[in-house]
Order: sequence, then C-alpha cells, then structure tokens
Amino acid sequence: MKDVEFMKAFMEPESIALVGVSRTTGEDSFNTLENLLNYGYSGKIYPVNPGTDEILGLRSYPSVKDIPHEIDLAVVSSPRSTVIDLVKECADKRVKGIVVVAQGFGDGDEEGIALQAEMVRIVKEAGSRIMGPNSLGIANFFCNLNTSFARSKPDKLPVGIICQSGLFFPGPPRLILAGKAIDLGNACDIDVSDALEYYETDPQIKLIVLYVEGIEKGRRFIEVARRVSKKKPILALKSGRSVYGAKAMKSHTGSLAGKDEIYDAAFRQSGVIRATDIDELADLSRAFSCLPLIKGRRIGIISMTGAGGVIAADTCQRYGLEVAKLSPEILAEVRGLFPSWLDISNPFDTWPAFQVSGYPYEEVVERAFQLMLADEAVDGVIFIHGVFGKEGSWDIVPPILRAADTFKDKPVLCWLYGTHDGIATKLEESGKVAVSLSCERAVRTVSRLREYAEFLERDQ
Amino acid sequence: MKDVEFMKAFMEPESIALVGVSRTTGEDSFNTLENLLNYGYSGKIYPVNPGTDEILGLRSYPSVKDIPHEIDLAVVSSPRSTVIDLVKECADKRVKGIVVVAQGFGDGDEEGIALQAEMVRIVKEAGSRIMGPNSLGIANFFCNLNTSFARSKPDKLPVGIICQSGLFFPGPPRLILAGKAIDLGNACDIDVSDALEYYETDPQIKLIVLYVEGIEKGRRFIEVARRVSKKKPILALKSGRSVYGAKAMKSHTGSLAGKDEIYDAAFRQSGVIRATDIDELADLSRAFSCLPLIKGRRIGIISMTGAGGVIAADTCQRYGLEVAKLSPEILAEVRGLFPSWLDISNPFDTWPAFQVSGYPYEEVVERAFQLMLADEAVDGVIFIHGVFGKEGSWDIVPPILRAADTFKDKPVLCWLYGTHDGIATKLEESGKVAVSLSCERAVRTVSRLREYAEFLERDQ
Repeated sequence: MKDVEFMKAFMEPESIALVGVSRTTGEDSFNTLENLLNYGYSGKIYPVNPGTDEILGLRSYPSVKDIPHEIDLAVVSSPRSTVIDLVKECADKRVKGIVVVAQGFGDGDEEGIALQAEMVRIVKEAGSRIMGPNSLGIANFFCNLNTSFARSKPDKLPVGIICQSGLFFPGPPRLILAGKAIDLGNACDIDVSDALEYYETDPQIKLIVLYVEGIEKGRRFIEVARRVSKKKPILALKSGRSVYGAKAMKSHTGSLAGKDEIYDAAFRQSGVIRATDIDELADLSRAFSCLPLIKGRRIGIISMTGAGGVIAADTCQRYGLEVAKLSPEILAEVRGLFPSWLDISNPFDTWPAFQVSGYPYEEVVERAFQLMLADEAVDGVIFIHGVFGKEGSWDIVPPILRAADTFKDKPVLCWLYGTHDGIATKLEESGKVAVSLSCERAVRTVSRLREYAEFLERDQ
Repeated sequence: MKDVEFMKAFMEPESIALVGVSRTTGEDSFNTLENLLNYGYSGKIYPVNPGTDEILGLRSYPSVKDIPHEIDLAVVSSPRSTVIDLVKECADKRVKGIVVVAQGFGDGDEEGIALQAEMVRIVKEAGSRIMGPNSLGIANFFCNLNTSFARSKPDKLPVGIICQSGLFFPGPPRLILAGKAIDLGNACDIDVSDALEYYETDPQIKLIVLYVEGIEKGRRFIEVARRVSKKKPILALKSGRSVYGAKAMKSHTGSLAGKDEIYDAAFRQSGVIRATDIDELADLSRAFSCLPLIKGRRIGIISMTGAGGVIAADTCQRYGLEVAKLSPEILAEVRGLFPSWLDISNPFDTWPAFQVSGYPYEEVVERAFQLMLADEAVDGVIFIHGVFGKEGSWDIVPPILRAADTFKDKPVLCWLYGTHDGIATKLEESGKVAVSLSCERAVRTVSRLREYAEFLERDQ
C-alpha cells in the first residue's frame, strides 16, 4: 500500500476503533466518542474499553482483537505503560493507521525513547503506520471527524494543518481556522512529508499550514515541499530557533533542533513561507485563504487618519514594499475630492477629503478605492479605517467589497482600529478582503503574499 | 508667566471659550460644547458663534471680545480662512492658551505655511501661547475635560499622552488608555518639551506616552526628556522613519523627518523607550502602568501548552532575555507535580502535570507560580494559558493574583489564547498583571521593561 493510501486510512477512515475511550460523558469530559457522535461522523465506530460492553449506545469491545470487522484507524488513548501492548494488538489486527495519544516517549526519559523505538518496530513488521505518539490524531471536517479529546467547531475550510502540538490543532484555541489537521506529535513514523503528500493531491485543500519542531528527513522534505508549494502555498512556523527553545522542544516532542539557518534555507529553497511568530502564522493563514497574490510591490494606502497613513508608509518600507507613485491622470481625477491646499499623493488622507468635499464618507471611500485600484501603478491597497461605536456612522463595507470585486487581481487589506465590531466580521465573512487589527501586521502580510508570488514567478 | 503656567492654562483651565462651536447637537454631531457638558466639566464655558445667542442653554457670544470675563483657554474650530482673525481676537483678549483645530497650515500649501508663521507672530507679541494648528487640543479627565469633537470615555488614569494625531488622542479608537492628553498638531508653538515639562511635575501622571512625527528643538528635547524619564517612564512612537513615511508626514503635520538614527540616539540617550509600532506602544502603555520594573533578564515560563513554552523560549532569546536556569532546590520541590518520565526544567509544562499529579488545574498553577517566583534565579514570569469556552473550566485568576501579590517586585505577564473572555478582563482590571493575546508581544514587553530598568540603574 502506498504512503498516500495509508494517509487516507488516517484522514478518511471508514471505520475507527477508539481504544481506551472513557465511560465518562458530558460537558468537560473530553470524551472522543461523544465528540465524534456530535460531529455526525458517519463511518463505523468501535469503542474499546475492557470495563463495559456499551458506551453512549454503541457496543464496546474488551480489545481491538474482538472487533469482528476491518479497521482503518485506531486511536489509542491510554497511559504510557499500556501503549505497546495495545499497538501490538492493533498491528496484529491489521489496522491500517494507529494514532497514539499518550506522552512520555521520545519526549520523555530513556525508557520512553526505547518504547517509541519498539512501537515503530512493531508497526513496520506488521505493515501498519503510526501517528504520534504525543498526538491528538487527525481532524477532517469534510467527513465530520476529529479524534482530539477537545471539542471543536467543524469548519469545512480549504486549509490543511500539519502540526506537532495541540496548540495549532482545531479545537478551542482556533488560532488557525482549518478544514483538516494532522498532529504528527513526536513524528516517529508518519512525518511532515507524508502529510504534505496527502494534502498535495487533496482537492479540498488549497492552503497548507505547518507547525513543526523538528524535521528528520530533510532531503525528502525539501523535495516534497518544493513540489507541493508550486501547487498550493505552504506556511510554516518552525520553533526551537534558540538554544532555550531547542531545549524546551526536546522535552515537548523529543525533536532535535538542528541549525536554524538550515531550516531557513530549506524553507526558502522550497518556497515555504516561514512565519516569524504565531500572530503572523494566523494572519497569513487568513490572507492566503482569501486574497489574490500580489503582482508587484507597489502599495496604495487609503487612510482615515493622517498618522495611520504615515505609519503604514513607514511600515511598507520596513517590509520591502513601495508606496506606489500614482499616475498623473489618477491624481488629476482625484483632485476634486481633496482640500485645495493639500498636496495630494499616496497615501490618500480621507478625513480632510470628507471634511471639504461635501461627499458622504462612504462616497469618499468608494472614489478613493476605485481611482487608486484603477491605477496601473498600484498592485494592492491597504485601507485604514477607525470604527467608532456600534457599526460606526458609515457603512463602508459595500464600497470596499465593490472595489475588491472590480479589481480581483489586486489584494485589499483593511486595518480597522477602534471598537471591533460588525464591520470586521462582515468584511471577513465576505471572503474577499483581509482584515487586521494591526497596521504593522496588515503590511507584513502583503509582503509575504508578494514573497510567495515571486517564488512562483521565479519558477516558471 | 512660566512655560509650565501656560501649560496649566491649557490643561487645567478655569474658563474656556469655544470659538466657532456649532449649533447642531445630538449623537454624531461632534459638538465640543455638548461633549464638555456631558463630561461634567465644572469651569466656565463661553460658546462663541455669531449666528446665535444661546447654545444648549449657555449664553453664546458673537466674538471672544464680547465675553466680559477672563479666559484661560480658547478652542478655535473654524475654517482655515477665518483662523488668523480669530487668533488675533483671542490674543487681544489676553487669552492664555489658544488651540487651533483647522488643518491646512504647516501641513498644507505655501499659503498655509505663511498663515502658520503669522499666527505664531501674533501670539508671541501678545504673550499668549498656541497649540496646533491641526490639533484636537487637550484632554484632562481629572477635571472632566476633553476639547476633541470626538466623544470619549473619561478615564482618570495616570497616563499622559503627547501626540501629533487624533489617532492616539482619547476618543473612540482608545488605542492608548490615558487620563490626560495633549495633541501638539503641527507644534508651531507649544512643543513636545513643553508638554513633557507639564507632566514632569504633575502628580496625577506616572507614565508618559509620545507619538511624534518631528521634533524641532532637539537639544532641548534631549535635556528635558532625560530629566523627566528619570522620574517617569516615557514611551515613544516616532514615525517618518522611511522616505515614504517622511513624505506622508510632510502633508500630515508639516514635520520634517530628519535622520531616523538621530532620533534613535536621542531617545536612547534620554531613556525614552521607543516602540516599534502601534501595537507595541499599546502593549507597553498597559504594562508600564501596572507592572514593577524587572530586576534582571531571567524569565520563568509556565505554560499549558508545550509548543507555547517552546515558542516563548525562542522569543525570549530573540528579545535578549534568558530562560531562567532554576535552582536545584526548587526543581526538587516541584518534582511531585510532574510525570516521572519528564525532565523538569523551565518552561514548566502544566498540562502533563495536571494529567498525572491528581491536582486540580488551579492547584497546579498555584504551585508552579509560587515555586517559580520564589526562586532567586527568576526575575519575572510569562504565564501561558488557553481559555476554553465561557470562563474556561478553571478559575485561574486567584492563583495568578496571589502570585503577583506575594512577589510584588517580579512582573507577571499572561499570554491568553483561545476565546477571549472574562479571565482577561478580570486580570487586567486587577491592575496587578499584564495580559496579552500574543506570545511574541508579551515577551517583547518584558524586554522593554528591562530596558527602562537598566537606564535607571546606569544612571544611579
């Protein structure tokens, strides 16, 4: 069976054994079976718990061996000391994919490291595959499935996560919104390249988000990532950059840090966009999901606040972007909007325009957007708006969305300051523009859109 | 009259003339008079509007000259073309402080620049002072006063803002919470040093926050800032760092950029903490308001998520902090909390501790905090917590506040991820710990607390 077939057993199983599932149910019980039933997973579920013969109306089995059916995926949730025997039973039963949840293996002491090696030996011999240990398993909301003990809101979004931590897995934190997720845990068998190859051919996934601590088979990773990132953008947060982080990582997933510069080079070579921090990973995951790639580095800025325009202009330079020099024709057309004493240029300062033009604020925004985006000297727009009170006095959502609709190949990012409210939600839900509550982060995001576009252009 | 006496006329006026106040009232009318009455300002208010003899129950005068009383502060809100005559009338009337709101002076064309020079000439001759033009004026919530047209929530907080933009002024954006504010606008007369000297001796203000585009009298600024920052921390965001920003600034406040490295050096010399971006300015304004200065660079990390601990450790190194090497005695004491297979060190990973120790999660947090902060090798703590659901299942606020109460000289910063909720609010309202929704930003904030502490130590 090919690697990608095994990945399908993990990600799209027709039958799941939940080994060591608890009988405790209800809110805060972290019961995986209860979660699966709530999501509406439609495959077969076999609870395994030697202490009972029924959980939540499903027949429970004392052991995986007693289940009289084929099993694609087993999720083993039991203490470290019991894991090897249970993995052995799964392997004997020819379960295709085994998730091991417990901690304390490669991430633990000498004994844990030995147990992890033993686990690998068992599945290799039997022809099964293992995900973890120290893993929440997988989520695939396209078939209402999430093996994590933490409940999540099932979103059918075209974003696939590959992580080594619950922090980025779909669940209550929701740092990254995703439709599928793979928690590699200690990655003793199934590794980041296997996961990438699954998403590579997955028509439901358009964007891949990685959180990795260590990558063992570097050469294979570069080869796979380079191929995949030409088809779908890959965003990555790689930690263990520092001596402190490397040490902490050792007892988190047992990963070895390696030189950070090597990872940097590997990501660059393979077109993987490396985020600096969690905030950037979250920003990019949203922006890459909804925005077109930007064709150049020339940015138009439309700002309700003069200081915001100045700060955005500064930030553009900091991130290697240009503040677009507008065409004379566009400047002539826009003249009537602004006070006569103002030296009009990019950024457009919409507040004085509103004060003197006599137009409603929405109309100022509409014209500023349409004129700026029509300029061939502009590759994308940062829009800066203060949201005052409930919905603000002005309904600026329609002019923004019309602009995004008219100029589909130029990304629009909005920095909203003030009270966070319905405007941000409406804009985000449109799926046409990106919203940020930080000027810095909006500009940084544009620079990374350009970085990926340049990788694709270089490669053509 | 001394400079600081003039500043008091602006900041603590007993009588205000509102020149050019509108008759339109009600929500969204931006009526300064109505705002002042709502705040409950108890000084005398004289509306000036030639078109009526009464606004909101107050007698209105056709001109400042007609007011038969002394006036500390006049706020001139009228179009550019009328400003010079009105300033002249104020000067003739011996008004001490004059705020000019209109734009289009030093921030505008040649004519505007000439008008601004004329305005300065008039007040110099008469012995008045001018704030602006292009200014919202001042806010002093300790006497229920804000001359801005935008309504704000009056907070009696010990933070004083000095800015050149409405973006940072108390009002709907509330990027920086403050008890007083001074909008220098184009700073044609009253400048940043005058404002600093006012806050220097102001017992109500403990922290000063600057947003400046240009500083003209550099030598005086360094002298004043260096003296003031030994008494109260000064945070600054200085824009116009880039060629783009400098250009945009020219038409925002008419400021000339100057070399950014010179500003950098001036801030460093004078102990001013320079923020990189708006987000950092907001973070620091909250942290410097409530946290003790940190005595060293050795950070303890307590994290619910292993990946979060790794990432925080990486970020510490990035910002020049150390992940504290804990004392053997503390490690021995904490042993019982953690699984036997875990190599305990800093960061403390509280999730496996919770899973195996049998303690409630609050108890794990309590012990982790008390032990870590008791260690002399630890100067401050970053606490990482995922907030799930409404209040989360665990009430972790009391153990955190007890820790902050017990170790008053060690700052505690909390990174909360997940759903933002009551826990963040409770912690912030305690005024004892700082809360961040970003790991990166929490760590960066600690490094800046240390930077200011080192400035004070060097200077002793």
